Amino acid sequence: MSDAGALLADAVGARHVLSGEAIAEEYGGDESLAVARRAPAYAVRPASAAEVADVLRIAGERRIPVTARGAGTGMSGACVPAPGGIVVSFERMNRVLQVDAVNHVAVVQPGVSLEALDRAVAPAGLCYPVRLGEPSASVGGTIATNAGGMHAVRHGVTRHHVLGLEAVLASGAIVRSGGKYVKTSAGYDLTQLLVGSEGTLALVTEATLRLRPRAGRSATVLAAFGSEEDVFRAVPPLAGGGPEPGGGPAPSGGPEPVALEYVDLLAMAAIAADGPEGTSGLGIPEDVRRAALGYLLVVLEDRSASRLEEDVESVATRLLGLGALDVFVLPAGAARKLTEARERAFWTAKAAGADDVVDAVVPRGALPELLAAARAAAEDTGSLVTGCGHAGDGNVHLSVFQPDPVRRDEVLRRLFRAAGEHGGAVSGEHGVGRAKKPYFLELEDPAKVELMRGIKLAFDPRGILNPGVLLDPGPQASTSVGSAPLVSPVTEVT
Amino acid sequence: MSDAGALLADAVGARHVLSGEAIAEEYGGDESLAVARRAPAYAVRPASAAEVADVLRIAGERRIPVTARGAGTGMSGACVPAPGGIVVSFERMNRVLQVDAVNHVAVVQPGVSLEALDRAVAPAGLCYPVRLGEPSASVGGTIATNAGGMHAVRHGVTRHHVLGLEAVLASGAIVRSGGKYVKTSAGYDLTQLLVGSEGTLALVTEATLRLRPRAGRSATVLAAFGSEEDVFRAVPPLAGGGPEPGGGPAPSGGPEPVALEYVDLLAMAAIAADGPEGTSGLGIPEDVRRAALGYLLVVLEDRSASRLEEDVESVATRLLGLGALDVFVLPAGAARKLTEARERAFWTAKAAGADDVVDAVVPRGALPELLAAARAAAEDTGSLVTGCGHAGDGNVHLSVFQPDPVRRDEVLRRLFRAAGEHGGAVSGEHGVGRAKKPYFLELEDPAKVELMRGIKLAFDPRGILNPGVLLDPGPQASTSVGSAPLVSPVTEVT
Repeated sequence: MSDAGALLADAVGARHVLSGEAIAEEYGGDESLAVARRAPAYAVRPASAAEVADVLRIAGERRIPVTARGAGTGMSGACVPAPGGIVVSFERMNRVLQVDAVNHVAVVQPGVSLEALDRAVAPAGLCYPVRLGEPSASVGGTIATNAGGMHAVRHGVTRHHVLGLEAVLASGAIVRSGGKYVKTSAGYDLTQLLVGSEGTLALVTEATLRLRPRAGRSATVLAAFGSEEDVFRAVPPLAGGGPEPGGGPAPSGGPEPVALEYVDLLAMAAIAADGPEGTSGLGIPEDVRRAALGYLLVVLEDRSASRLEEDVESVATRLLGLGALDVFVLPAGAARKLTEARERAFWTAKAAGADDVVDAVVPRGALPELLAAARAAAEDTGSLVTGCGHAGDGNVHLSVFQPDPVRRDEVLRRLFRAAGEHGGAVSGEHGVGRAKKPYFLELEDPAKVELMRGIKLAFDPRGILNPGVLLDPGPQASTSVGSAPLVSPVTEVT
Repeated sequence: MSDAGALLADAVGARHVLSGEAIAEEYGGDESLAVARRAPAYAVRPASAAEVADVLRIAGERRIPVTARGAGTGMSGACVPAPGGIVVSFERMNRVLQVDAVNHVAVVQPGVSLEALDRAVAPAGLCYPVRLGEPSASVGGTIATNAGGMHAVRHGVTRHHVLGLEAVLASGAIVRSGGKYVKTSAGYDLTQLLVGSEGTLALVTEATLRLRPRAGRSATVLAAFGSEEDVFRAVPPLAGGGPEPGGGPAPSGGPEPVALEYVDLLAMAAIAADGPEGTSGLGIPEDVRRAALGYLLVVLEDRSASRLEEDVESVATRLLGLGALDVFVLPAGAARKLTEARERAFWTAKAAGADDVVDAVVPRGALPELLAAARAAAEDTGSLVTGCGHAGDGNVHLSVFQPDPVRRDEVLRRLFRAAGEHGGAVSGEHGVGRAKKPYFLELEDPAKVELMRGIKLAFDPRGILNPGVLLDPGPQASTSVGSAPLVSPVTEVT
């Protein structure tokens, strides 16, 4: 074992330093369809912030790239390590440290999964409202990508629920920012800056998360529409409980759904494939099923059964007024089935042979324009682009079926460009990672990229944190910020 | 007129460049009790982002400090200009550019006041839920301080409603970040970094703000308590509609108040001073008024009259169960009066001769500890420290009556230290500015201050943006980030 390996073993214990053949394949990447896995030189499994700090000091002195890893459920290759790098896996830092029912927060280690967090806070009548398709995702990973999920339309994204962080800087210093409070105006908000930074600024070792009361009751309404356009036209009036546009002076709002999901025919077909237990269980008559070209799934929650019933009635009426062919209030079992199918959409697409997944975001009112651009790009390149997604948030997940890399590149470029032209961005929740970096850097304002490089340099003057993710790795400035010494770019471990 | 003056006149028009005696006193500062106003060398009133960019290029080439100014309602001296500086007043950039009912956003210029914004969005059945004591505050100023206000306990703070920004960098480059969407994971979040940066990183020239449906109906419940401690003990179970701590397995939550305000006897006395139209109008019996040593104001909202009535009943019952001496549902007129008195608390304290105001924040469960520390500091120094505030957010506004600057400094230092020891921060919403900077820099982790300096350097290598606010102004690094030339520290205009 090399010098670095011996020092890492001192830091985290020899059995928690893996190298060579001992490194399981999964340590090399995530679920991205576009970024191949790559084995790191070392995979380490620290048990504390102090151990993470030791690892970063060892890496920093030797200019070894360091990549943080949660559950590996990411979609953009942000945890694929740089060549010769160290993967820091948080699998042993997986404890819920505190459920604080007075201040409505949980304090957790980054390796906690969303499902484990939910189990921990449920007995206190609380919930963490970030609901992803993949509940095995780790809190640390969701912070790295600012994950959104299905309930963002009502409750916001990860950023809105991260109140405080403990993080280890590239220097090995352990810092704490924020805390058990929402209001803060005390310097640049480092907590918010770390959220969504994809492991390139610091390694999060603890998070203070805002919890909400559990609603207790939920209802699911499914609406069938005669066209995709009709689905998207129905979304804005329903999203956020808003009044209908043009509804006259001071119109009254409606219920605020916790989820407003577009379900396409592919996802619906996957349910139907389950046989008699499939779509037939949803109670959709055959004629409606034939006429439907898109579905909208609306989930409502409340602590009161009577209010929930009223809200379901109100939403169903609104949906019919907005052009739905038919509206179904689903029994609990069917609702769970459909929601799970929606959440499994990525796996369905992957099984069907999708070559990439795009999660561009646009203002929700601009979804029809984004989808039209997707169709045009698909036609012109002989590709299939299909998707379902978070319609209430203007965030669709488009599966791109096009095995030819040059044509696929054209489809992606056109999709991202269309998103930008309609006031959107490259990614709503998956992050830039390695997969979307070329498009991000090509389309983003160079003045902003330069600011991001400056921020990166302030946090990581030696460029050891996840180099090659989000930004290109170098060259590092020939002098760094403040009093740090002259440095050379990251080199591979030997 | 000097060279700079002539260039500024070219940039924004001669009648919008003020100097010398022509500069009204208000351009020299804000409402801070602790920071004296200081006249700038120039006050300019640009009409567009392009004009702001011209001003910044002129200032940058000459190393002239630039301070942005909104409505001047700040509390921490963040818009007191550096000596010889330029004040950029956004009073002419005060238009609501768009109310977008499809995407539930407003696009506004920074000089728009919160009350003007409310008037603009009300006809669409929407509201901007950041509700400050001072509705004449400008949107730009609230973004600079990440203002919170009374409704933060339910709807969050300014940061949660700023979806996108246009801003002018120190270089004069105009950049846009974010947009009409909540979900985003496309690089470091520059929008969120600018929120709360107190004019030290860039000048905001346009904001895209998230709107919510107007609730339509509100009710105000006032609870009288026998001690301040009882008030604060009642807050956590009510805040966020949470279940009562220790309420058993999966307790059900209650209504979520939009405001949970502590009203102290001083504020109540100010209402009583209005004579028979005062507290007597609140319907509080004489015996309750005598026994009460603190009040909790709970505001509820809903779009449905019957739900609101149910929620009022539920909250009143909860308050009595939590030890309230008596609970009053206020008629609309009295509720408005009391809320306005609560919002005027700062002016009441100022009129009574307060020497400073502190808005430290702690986890809401730690408010009794913070108040105990405040009492101890007051006793030991012969000061009066009294306050009311945003109890649901752990954010009290403490008025400090102590004319002697050395003793006052001791009180403030002890208060801020206590906030830190109980997991809080120096400011919840007023910002650090110039007023709280010595305490902020003394108490903050030097590793974090160093990161903030690095961020500052990335945005403003020449140090022209609001130097002396939040961080000490220099020395600037002898080399700056990236390709910018060697620079010297900011100098005064000649």
